[in-house]
Amino acid sequence: MRNTFGNIFTLTSFGESHGEAVGGVIDGMPAGIEIDMDFIQTELNRRRPGQNAITTGRKEPDKVELLSGIFDGKTTGCPIGFLVKNTNQHSEDYENMRNVFRPSHADYTYYNKYGARDYRGGGRSSARITIARCVAGAFAKLALRKLGITISAYTSQIGDIYVRDDYRTLDLSLVETNAVRCPDLKAAKEMEELVSKLKSKGDTVGGIISCVIRNCPSGLGEPEFDKFHAALGAAMLGINAVKGFEYGEGFSMANRYGSEVNDIFMSKNGKTVTQTNHSGGIQGGISNGSDIFFRVAFKPVATLLMEQHTVDISGNPTTLTAKGRHDPCVLPRAVPIVEAMAAMTVLDFYLLNKCAKL
Amino acid sequence: MRNTFGNIFTLTSFGESHGEAVGGVIDGMPAGIEIDMDFIQTELNRRRPGQNAITTGRKEPDKVELLSGIFDGKTTGCPIGFLVKNTNQHSEDYENMRNVFRPSHADYTYYNKYGARDYRGGGRSSARITIARCVAGAFAKLALRKLGITISAYTSQIGDIYVRDDYRTLDLSLVETNAVRCPDLKAAKEMEELVSKLKSKGDTVGGIISCVIRNCPSGLGEPEFDKFHAALGAAMLGINAVKGFEYGEGFSMANRYGSEVNDIFMSKNGKTVTQTNHSGGIQGGISNGSDIFFRVAFKPVATLLMEQHTVDISGNPTTLTAKGRHDPCVLPRAVPIVEAMAAMTVLDFYLLNKCAKL
Amino acid sequence: MRNTFGNIFTLTSFGESHGEAVGGVIDGMPAGIEIDMDFIQTELNRRRPGQNAITTGRKEPDKVELLSGIFDGKTTGCPIGFLVKNTNQHSEDYENMRNVFRPSHADYTYYNKYGARDYRGGGRSSARITIARCVAGAFAKLALRKLGITISAYTSQIGDIYVRDDYRTLDLSLVETNAVRCPDLKAAKEMEELVSKLKSKGDTVGGIISCVIRNCPSGLGEPEFDKFHAALGAAMLGINAVKGFEYGEGFSMANRYGSEVNDIFMSKNGKTVTQTNHSGGIQGGISNGSDIFFRVAFKPVATLLMEQHTVDISGNPTTLTAKGRHDPCVLPRAVPIVEAMAAMTVLDFYLLNKCAKL
Amino acid sequence: MRNTFGNIFTLTSFGESHGEAVGGVIDGMPAGIEIDMDFIQTELNRRRPGQNAITTGRKEPDKVELLSGIFDGKTTGCPIGFLVKNTNQHSEDYENMRNVFRPSHADYTYYNKYGARDYRGGGRSSARITIARCVAGAFAKLALRKLGITISAYTSQIGDIYVRDDYRTLDLSLVETNAVRCPDLKAAKEMEELVSKLKSKGDTVGGIISCVIRNCPSGLGEPEFDKFHAALGAAMLGINAVKGFEYGEGFSMANRYGSEVNDIFMSKNGKTVTQTNHSGGIQGGISNGSDIFFRVAFKPVATLLMEQHTVDISGNPTTLTAKGRHDPCVLPRAVPIVEAMAAMTVLDFYLLNKCAKL
Repeated sequence: MRNTFGNIFTLTSFGESHGEAVGGVIDGMPAGIEIDMDFIQTELNRRRPGQNAITTGRKEPDKVELLSGIFDGKTTGCPIGFLVKNTNQHSEDYENMRNVFRPSHADYTYYNKYGARDYRGGGRSSARITIARCVAGAFAKLALRKLGITISAYTSQIGDIYVRDDYRTLDLSLVETNAVRCPDLKAAKEMEELVSKLKSKGDTVGGIISCVIRNCPSGLGEPEFDKFHAALGAAMLGINAVKGFEYGEGFSMANRYGSEVNDIFMSKNGKTVTQTNHSGGIQGGISNGSDIFFRVAFKPVATLLMEQHTVDISGNPTTLTAKGRHDPCVLPRAVPIVEAMAAMTVLDFYLLNKCAKL
Repeated sequence: MRNTFGNIFTLTSFGESHGEAVGGVIDGMPAGIEIDMDFIQTELNRRRPGQNAITTGRKEPDKVELLSGIFDGKTTGCPIGFLVKNTNQHSEDYENMRNVFRPSHADYTYYNKYGARDYRGGGRSSARITIARCVAGAFAKLALRKLGITISAYTSQIGDIYVRDDYRTLDLSLVETNAVRCPDLKAAKEMEELVSKLKSKGDTVGGIISCVIRNCPSGLGEPEFDKFHAALGAAMLGINAVKGFEYGEGFSMANRYGSEVNDIFMSKNGKTVTQTNHSGGIQGGISNGSDIFFRVAFKPVATLLMEQHTVDISGNPTTLTAKGRHDPCVLPRAVPIVEAMAAMTVLDFYLLNKCAKL
Repeated sequence: MRNTFGNIFTLTSFGESHGEAVGGVIDGMPAGIEIDMDFIQTELNRRRPGQNAITTGRKEPDKVELLSGIFDGKTTGCPIGFLVKNTNQHSEDYENMRNVFRPSHADYTYYNKYGARDYRGGGRSSARITIARCVAGAFAKLALRKLGITISAYTSQIGDIYVRDDYRTLDLSLVETNAVRCPDLKAAKEMEELVSKLKSKGDTVGGIISCVIRNCPSGLGEPEFDKFHAALGAAMLGINAVKGFEYGEGFSMANRYGSEVNDIFMSKNGKTVTQTNHSGGIQGGISNGSDIFFRVAFKPVATLLMEQHTVDISGNPTTLTAKGRHDPCVLPRAVPIVEAMAAMTVLDFYLLNKCAKL
Repeated sequence: MRNTFGNIFTLTSFGESHGEAVGGVIDGMPAGIEIDMDFIQTELNRRRPGQNAITTGRKEPDKVELLSGIFDGKTTGCPIGFLVKNTNQHSEDYENMRNVFRPSHADYTYYNKYGARDYRGGGRSSARITIARCVAGAFAKLALRKLGITISAYTSQIGDIYVRDDYRTLDLSLVETNAVRCPDLKAAKEMEELVSKLKSKGDTVGGIISCVIRNCPSGLGEPEFDKFHAALGAAMLGINAVKGFEYGEGFSMANRYGSEVNDIFMSKNGKTVTQTNHSGGIQGGISNGSDIFFRVAFKPVATLLMEQHTVDISGNPTTLTAKGRHDPCVLPRAVPIVEAMAAMTVLDFYLLNKCAKL
């Protein structure tokens, strides 16, 4: 619970932004999966800071070390311990936050809950913690690869710039070609300009990441409380700065009629499929074999490089101007994290579904 | 897992629409809480079908029987078994669905996952199953009442009719005065008319339910994977027909700047509070003492009283016209379910939070 | 947790001795298993009081009602709610225990933990609660039957009378032929005489139940914390009055050399097997395909029909003589409960083991 | 599950004998506990090999590195990642075991379950893995110290040499004064001689470790399935080489009468206590405030430095003589592990018990 994600395939993570290391333990990884270290490191590099001009200028090598669970190049079924050392921390950038709560950050709530907090770099609430998710997600992807299941996320909105969000018409091979990870290159360019402009002001902006899971078999999801979309939603809502989740046609279904959005069944090549996919690939909480589609809303980064009013831990009014290296927009680096959480969820429920019958 | 909700305060539910009974086991209910049977039954009555002209015409008394866990009018700390008998089932209404998959329903996915299904009334995927949630939610509310925490949900949108969704300006005491449970009486009237019109056509419509939790103490939520809003989101996404969840300003934050939506801290009567509440009462995954606000999107009910194309279990094309008594819009009866799931989540995390310090 | 047993195949139970009913919810039962109601009721009858002269004289019909999860005679993969009504409770027998703690019973600890207790018939701590285990165990046995796995428990010791405890030489078909469920008929007769003698005095006696699981496949058990024998041990130690658990040669191995008790591998009909089975069928926490053997020690029943010194809830010294109908020895009726807990554990770990590989 | 222990206070461990490192993540450690690094390392040193003539000759520094969860010398409530590097592994000692199953070891069952295994030094089934338990146990002890709860284990039997096992008359301050960790110095000397003799032969021997928990408050334990002794039992049975667990008078209660072993209540200094403690401090699954006492049986170490018959992975008969550095008797080094598992269990249930009332 708490720092463990999943039921059968699980990640238990640890680490703070300015501690010794971040890492975790992956448990329930099926035995006999070949390990592709380059792939794992590449996945991790996708979330690394300093990739380009519009992300934070921090330089962190973020090299993953695997400590257990692999032998002769394959998983053994034993837990996989891993860590990424923190090597480029500028704790002095945070000295002015020791006794001051940053607005809309986790400072105040952590302090209240635990009676103390590691104020350096956001401590446990730092987005740096998502490193563990990327590593575990890479392992999950290696297993899903054997099953032919693929997961692709992309930035579909930043601020007031958005794409026509239909993954069937977008060219997702373009996602990694631009700094904001948007498959519509025109929109991508506008997004980059918006983020650059905000960065120069010290301001930040929110957005939406969309994700499609292809070739997911029918049967994933445990009805009632562990519906597949409930698990995906919990996974996404656990990512830093996320404010909302929807799948299929989501919130827009509030304004639709059943006669418009029911997905009619038909037979195709001897298989039962739906003519449309308003449902987003999940019906009654269980995957139906169609593409699974969902969207995740992110708020603007809370840390502004401009002066903000706040109070200190004694309740005295004060002002705070963050120093250091911060992202003006979290979305580009969050794309691989959305994929990682989705991959872990799919593998977890794939394994759970093995137990539906004897 | 699966049919169990919660960590410390848990509900394990059972039952199908046309089986003997629906019910469950509430575990982790704190000892020594006085039981108010009238309150529990009243909560259950709020979701009962046949309350008025625009809900299903089914008449189900839905009388809850408590089987254990209570002694001398108080909870004992032991599990509370309960059931509600199914007494007015018209299984013959579903005979034509025995071998046919209803579009956008759980028929196909259950059949695929388990190799068989109870087709009568939707079986386990029926909204009738939410009875167990209402009962457990009522118990949770009895505990929260002692802590002064209140939970109020209301319909904020049906189809294209919506209220200006600010719980601070809406008069939530009006929610129970109209058939759609909307606190804006003008909008309520329009919603009722819309639903009536669709009912007469055999069509259905979606909508949004909003919910506010007041007087929730700071500290609820376990950072990283069990963030408080992730738990609330999973709880809501587990409700039948839900397609999306957002908290605070949710999806609209995608198009905002940090300088607009950060909640500035100030000191008020010796307490640290925020000047605004864009965050929705949760920061870094932990409640901050402000009102908690979230919204839940529902799709239109999948069962239409009009002919639809579909296939049977052999893949042959066919048509299906649902018979029987169905809701044209799930929202009015889902309002108490949203409250119930929220109440269970708040109590569960209140108890978990006791363990943050020795 | 607490009132839920198992990981994938789970039982969540409820009920007190003198409440409305005892029962539970079985979750994770694989779909498609044929239900044999006679078998389930027969399993329940094996633990029923009043079977013969040496058990309690209580007459309880203990008829199980299944409420969900079954359709067309087969399990559907949905949770199975069930209950057994309490129909023959003599609560007045317990009136003198309202404010008095019975020695070596759960009265004092429940009172201390929860601030109150249902004193009638032991409340939640009554052995009557094991009804739920027998029902769930019967379902597990129906699944194991399809896998060819059998579970046989028997009384191997009562007081100072014991059998030579080798399940390979004992004739386990004799277990159900006598009142103490001992497969050695000479020992059985002596045990019956001992129990009868103690019953006439109002005294009680302990004993040992042994159990063998045959045809259990290799691979069950999750190394490190969920070793197969750790799960079996926890299951057995959760049964009322149990004081100890050992598997294979158990405690006697403390006084043995490695050269004496290592199980040497050999090849037999193309399969790797062990020449001996000192290990009890489990090595490194994982079943090895041999017979699994374990023993469970029970203390004498705490309720004596003789005067005992004690204190009341105010700490005043007093005496207490139990009234009513009590077992002088719990073992004969505990044999089916040991089997039930073993069956649940085996099925649970059989399902878990499906996830070891993709 | 599987590689995670506990409910609220949890350890998730990783590592193999000859991998990079062993370690784990401690979650649920209460915030604000002062960290005593010397104490933690000392606890770890107690299980270290090469402490004296009768343990394995391996020299492993086993220095613990804490990676997170601590700030300003205190726990923060965040997970504590830690590791101990493997620095002195002689993998070549195990080359002859690559394709051969050691008798009564985990080689065969791991191979069967996972389709492969890390054969070097026992891989995940090595006792080296218990390092993670010692570290987590040390953290638990630091929390229990604040509550005044102490845990003391000791060797009470090795082979046919045993002490009169009454912790009230034994002088437990002598445990750390001798190589076998036995508080009876005469028995200790005989045990050392026995182990030395067996070591010279390449043989091994089993034994019993006893443990007392003092000053444990009443109320720990969740009735029904998570009885306190069931949790302690599962914890102990998860330790390598354990074959049995008993608490209070354990297996000897099989041969006792209720009139002999019931613990009579009395009032003492205004508190309700028992005159005797046959129960071992737990009644109805809940601690009663008396000393908690239990015993754990260990089999002889399976690895013998003498030739044994076995088969290889193709089923061909062969012989195997282990090389390298092995303990002839696991008990002396298992004493701190028994304490560690007990400490984790006590802290976990202490935290759970906070939720019994609102």
